[in-house]
Amino acid sequence: MNTKRYRIVNYMTVDEKIIQYRPIGIIHTPFKEPKGTPIQPQGAVGIKGQIEIFDEFVEGLTDLKGFSHIILLYHFHQCQGFALKVKPWAENVERGVFATRAPKRPNPLGISVVRLVSVSGRILEVEDVDILDGTPLLDIKPYIPTVDCRQAERIGWVSGKTEKFSNVRADNRFSNKS
Amino acid sequence: MNTKRYRIVNYMTVDEKIIQYRPIGIIHTPFKEPKGTPIQPQGAVGIKGQIEIFDEFVEGLTDLKGFSHIILLYHFHQCQGFALKVKPWAENVERGVFATRAPKRPNPLGISVVRLVSVSGRILEVEDVDILDGTPLLDIKPYIPTVDCRQAERIGWVSGKTEKFSNVRADNRFSNKS
Repeated sequence: MNTKRYRIVNYMTVDEKIIQYRPIGIIHTPFKEPKGTPIQPQGAVGIKGQIEIFDEFVEGLTDLKGFSHIILLYHFHQCQGFALKVKPWAENVERGVFATRAPKRPNPLGISVVRLVSVSGRILEVEDVDILDGTPLLDIKPYIPTVDCRQAERIGWVSGKTEKFSNVRADNRFSNKS
Repeated sequence: MNTKRYRIVNYMTVDEKIIQYRPIGIIHTPFKEPKGTPIQPQGAVGIKGQIEIFDEFVEGLTDLKGFSHIILLYHFHQCQGFALKVKPWAENVERGVFATRAPKRPNPLGISVVRLVSVSGRILEVEDVDILDGTPLLDIKPYIPTVDCRQAERIGWVSGKTEKFSNVRADNRFSNKS
């Protein structure tokens, strides 16, 4: 740890600083419960969804329709609590939660890249959604390959397992109902 | 709007639902103020940073070191307030904020893909950081190209401007100090 370059100061304790966000809209999809929801967009190709943006934020959608893909940041609203070790869908071994895309995270934030089909008023039609119906949307960003794509040399425990993402559907292990 | 498939119900008003997150750590970088900070990782190649994870979340880092790249989700802590139309770095025309990566967003959430150099206890050494020093970290996800990369046919107003991302450094237009 190079303390000469940066002074590492834990100036913010976990309890001391709460960050508050408000949904900007709601994501509507055919997936009414965690069970059966694709775990990643590859398993959701062609699945259509609608995003409803609250009136007060609609002006912020200007210029969005020029992008073929957008990044959605959303809140995993069906998750409560979290674990630091989880068994991901792709296998049966416990992994550190930050090395997985599991929803039960300390801050249950989800991100998905989806295809933007159309923008009509406050409704976005999207495709390739792997998101639960009713999910609160926190942010939309334009998807820009030169910003968002990397040549990753190593993908750790996921190596050789990415094909499973296309086929595996969620069970209820991360739901409060399970 | 296909109301037959989904009932669009604005069941959650913006004021009614507040989502609370707590930082899991702090991002340390050489960039002490917005001015001069690269606006995207392409402009930050080789720039080293350190991420300090709070003790209670360290167990969640297990298995992370297998990944060459990670996604950081963080809070733009120097932003207060937002605009629905902003002038992005790459040009001098106002755009809808959701069609830009500008930090002054309704929910000031940032995402960056960075190279993971090492994991040592609660400290991650990373490279290619375009993030301000002291930024509160909300989540880490493994970067998996088959999940996170798309062939985008259209990148809207950004088309032809991505080279600017490598050269442009931030001014203070999104800072509270400006």
